[in-house]
Amino acid sequence: MAAPQQKLEADGEKQNDGYTTDTESLVHSSDPLHPANHISDLCRRFYSLGWVTGTGGGVSIRHGNHIFLAPSGVQKEMMQPTDMFVMDFHTREYLRRPRALKPSACTPLFMAAYTHRHAGCCIHTHSQWAVLITLICEAGLQNSAERNVFAIKEIEQIKGISRGGSGSDEIAEGGRKVGNLGYYDTMKIPIIENTAHEEDLKGALERAIEEWPEACAVLVRRHGVYVWGKDVAQAKTQAESLDYSFQLAVEMHKMGMKWV
Amino acid sequence: MAAPQQKLEADGEKQNDGYTTDTESLVHSSDPLHPANHISDLCRRFYSLGWVTGTGGGVSIRHGNHIFLAPSGVQKEMMQPTDMFVMDFHTREYLRRPRALKPSACTPLFMAAYTHRHAGCCIHTHSQWAVLITLICEAGLQNSAERNVFAIKEIEQIKGISRGGSGSDEIAEGGRKVGNLGYYDTMKIPIIENTAHEEDLKGALERAIEEWPEACAVLVRRHGVYVWGKDVAQAKTQAESLDYSFQLAVEMHKMGMKWV
Amino acid sequence: MAAPQQKLEADGEKQNDGYTTDTESLVHSSDPLHPANHISDLCRRFYSLGWVTGTGGGVSIRHGNHIFLAPSGVQKEMMQPTDMFVMDFHTREYLRRPRALKPSACTPLFMAAYTHRHAGCCIHTHSQWAVLITLICEAGLQNSAERNVFAIKEIEQIKGISRGGSGSDEIAEGGRKVGNLGYYDTMKIPIIENTAHEEDLKGALERAIEEWPEACAVLVRRHGVYVWGKDVAQAKTQAESLDYSFQLAVEMHKMGMKWV
Amino acid sequence: MAAPQQKLEADGEKQNDGYTTDTESLVHSSDPLHPANHISDLCRRFYSLGWVTGTGGGVSIRHGNHIFLAPSGVQKEMMQPTDMFVMDFHTREYLRRPRALKPSACTPLFMAAYTHRHAGCCIHTHSQWAVLITLICEAGLQNSAERNVFAIKEIEQIKGISRGGSGSDEIAEGGRKVGNLGYYDTMKIPIIENTAHEEDLKGALERAIEEWPEACAVLVRRHGVYVWGKDVAQAKTQAESLDYSFQLAVEMHKMGMKWV
Repeated sequence: MAAPQQKLEADGEKQNDGYTTDTESLVHSSDPLHPANHISDLCRRFYSLGWVTGTGGGVSIRHGNHIFLAPSGVQKEMMQPTDMFVMDFHTREYLRRPRALKPSACTPLFMAAYTHRHAGCCIHTHSQWAVLITLICEAGLQNSAERNVFAIKEIEQIKGISRGGSGSDEIAEGGRKVGNLGYYDTMKIPIIENTAHEEDLKGALERAIEEWPEACAVLVRRHGVYVWGKDVAQAKTQAESLDYSFQLAVEMHKMGMKWV
Repeated sequence: MAAPQQKLEADGEKQNDGYTTDTESLVHSSDPLHPANHISDLCRRFYSLGWVTGTGGGVSIRHGNHIFLAPSGVQKEMMQPTDMFVMDFHTREYLRRPRALKPSACTPLFMAAYTHRHAGCCIHTHSQWAVLITLICEAGLQNSAERNVFAIKEIEQIKGISRGGSGSDEIAEGGRKVGNLGYYDTMKIPIIENTAHEEDLKGALERAIEEWPEACAVLVRRHGVYVWGKDVAQAKTQAESLDYSFQLAVEMHKMGMKWV
Repeated sequence: MAAPQQKLEADGEKQNDGYTTDTESLVHSSDPLHPANHISDLCRRFYSLGWVTGTGGGVSIRHGNHIFLAPSGVQKEMMQPTDMFVMDFHTREYLRRPRALKPSACTPLFMAAYTHRHAGCCIHTHSQWAVLITLICEAGLQNSAERNVFAIKEIEQIKGISRGGSGSDEIAEGGRKVGNLGYYDTMKIPIIENTAHEEDLKGALERAIEEWPEACAVLVRRHGVYVWGKDVAQAKTQAESLDYSFQLAVEMHKMGMKWV
Repeated sequence: MAAPQQKLEADGEKQNDGYTTDTESLVHSSDPLHPANHISDLCRRFYSLGWVTGTGGGVSIRHGNHIFLAPSGVQKEMMQPTDMFVMDFHTREYLRRPRALKPSACTPLFMAAYTHRHAGCCIHTHSQWAVLITLICEAGLQNSAERNVFAIKEIEQIKGISRGGSGSDEIAEGGRKVGNLGYYDTMKIPIIENTAHEEDLKGALERAIEEWPEACAVLVRRHGVYVWGKDVAQAKTQAESLDYSFQLAVEMHKMGMKWV
């Protein structure tokens, strides 16, 4: 029978690096918000949004010193908790690695957000709206002087974006999000050039994170976007608000409107 | 573990304003049409339509003198009945306020429709079609003289809109909706300018409601739309018919067609 | 409580025209393909396709001499078997009419297809693609000489359309549909002008049916499309193939391509 | 009652070619990955993606010497395991043919991929993005010299495509897919002309497969695309990555951008 994805169910018990440990307990929980379950659920949701088609994109959650990572090459809408890799935040060693699977090429990029932005969750999408934004900027069609940054202002939805991505999203009485961008702020998302191999994006992504302390995301030319948040809710809702702004900006561009 | 949204399950029993009351009974019901359940269901539906992405938008139902309100900052597709705020229509005091949540910034805007239009349900969306309509009007691309109103006629779907939004939608024998717009009427929806803070829209929204007695909704520039109805069915179906007309009008505009 | 749609559950037993009969048995069945169940299911599916938003559109099935009709004003995605009207094909009298509901304005239009094309199922959608096609034709943007017909050829999907709509869709060995349009045929769908009241479309629709014996549908300007088939499967799949051709034709038009 | 699709449940037991065999066991299994179940599941998924509307398109899985094929004329979202045809790979004779159904016209085309590319799964979609790509190429709008091939490069998602379609998709440490296209490779998909009858595509499709050894798919002008993989996962994810590239390329074209 055509086997869509080879998986060994009990593949965590004995690692090829020699040590034996009960790594299954890292991904088995009846709590739907346990990171292994939560990532599987998010993958299904993001697939239905068109963000992770064809095994593209990635999702990761930090839980204490454990970094949970969806693997490479698995269809996102079929992701299972037992597919998860678990890495120690400090040693960068895998505490659990499913034998039949390979770690995601996004891993070093997610680690950059965990390290430099104290993120609790990272999301990488191949959303076509993100890619189209990078193409419009590349061609200088909106602003011939700024090809390496997407900037938009006076759009209500950007108020859903916290400064730096993992900043406070405290809500004051009346619903105002005090740590977020305001309506008259300009949201700026840096764009880095794509590389032949995803792991080679690490340097440019880290530099972008340093140079743009207010950005909640980094766009990658002709590729997609990396977005993070202090927890899953913030990362996911920011990914949604960003994607909304990308889509709106593409439609504005088609009608000859300026973003700023 | 990354907690997506902090919620205290038993958060209604003791309010920080000191009074103790069994406010839980306000939101617990096995009836799917109870306002607390109904709002949760509507939020899920509107999320799937792309109207309330990234915690944007809002939904409210009036039930007698109780105003039920979805809170601020909660992902709409995960809304639970216990997340609801309940306000007394006359005193404007909260009869129930979940301790870990904040009231929606839409609250004073919804109250305007309840007060001035005798609405039974209010819906606020961030639909991109609504935002694009306000941008086309802002730029004067359809009618350079009327930048503060969206007008369209001779589209069958506008027959789904009642005069004033909460007027009679009585259906005569043969299916004719006698209190609704007719095919040869021009549907006009006023557009108000956005403000830095949502609650500051109240004055302009109330003026628009007064000045446009036949309008069933108010568009907010670069933000979205507020729509209401005498009950949930009317508010929801009008929100759908409006969004249909916005989308169609954007497509018409792209092909060089005039709305009126 | 805000009641979205008033329905009387036992509303068929006593009609206001005085006769009493067990009309409930007409709509109660455990068979999912019973017309009352089938229409409810189709309404839900068509809502998710965007064809019947805001209570727009309609669906009907003929079962022997019984014509089953979805009512006016009910949200399609919430349609229940008990909402159905049942009409006698020959006498045109209602065998069942839910007391709290009104018959659909589409009824005389559906009867035209049952009478003149021996249809077994009729579908009316407000699909935006259908409306946009009628607008492109109205403006003469594709063919300035033919504003009252949509014509397209050399698109594989039109092979899913039977001649006349309710003709044979027999499939020969190898998968060829012998009674359907061929790839090199030109599919032509007449367009009639909309009227203030839906029932007034009847004359023009009947004339279009007579004048275009090969057409499986009639487009209504700025309104939508009526499509039929000898049974539900044929009507539904033709509605899908037509909508596909409308959408593709709009996209072709945007890119400056000719339909024929 | 309007019967949407006539099916005889026990239709495999006695074939009209005279031999009697327990062919039902070929399609009955509780394993969701059994080809008969798997194809039904894929058909439902592809319907929701808009790839197989109106009974268009097709899906097939090879399991050893058994070729499982979805039938002609059945609504894809309602496909059942008992609807499947089963053919012997070597003799090309049907081991099972549901009496009330007809084999798919795609059958000889799928056999070409099984034979010439050692595929384990073939997918045929009528995706509008695929059709639009063939129309843009036909009109020479991107490259007036190359009307019979779709070419695109420097788009991250093409890294989801294996060379030849059924080549190795081995993933190296770090997530790099070693047998797949690289970011700087140009993905080329040949386009063949459509014919009046689907089975007549066979010669041109086989020639395209021979002439383009690196292609994982063949586009058919004004019709759709045939894509394959060594197993279901590879065929499905490549179909997704291809469709993504088609959609992105159409949007790029609308904004005046070049694909290569």
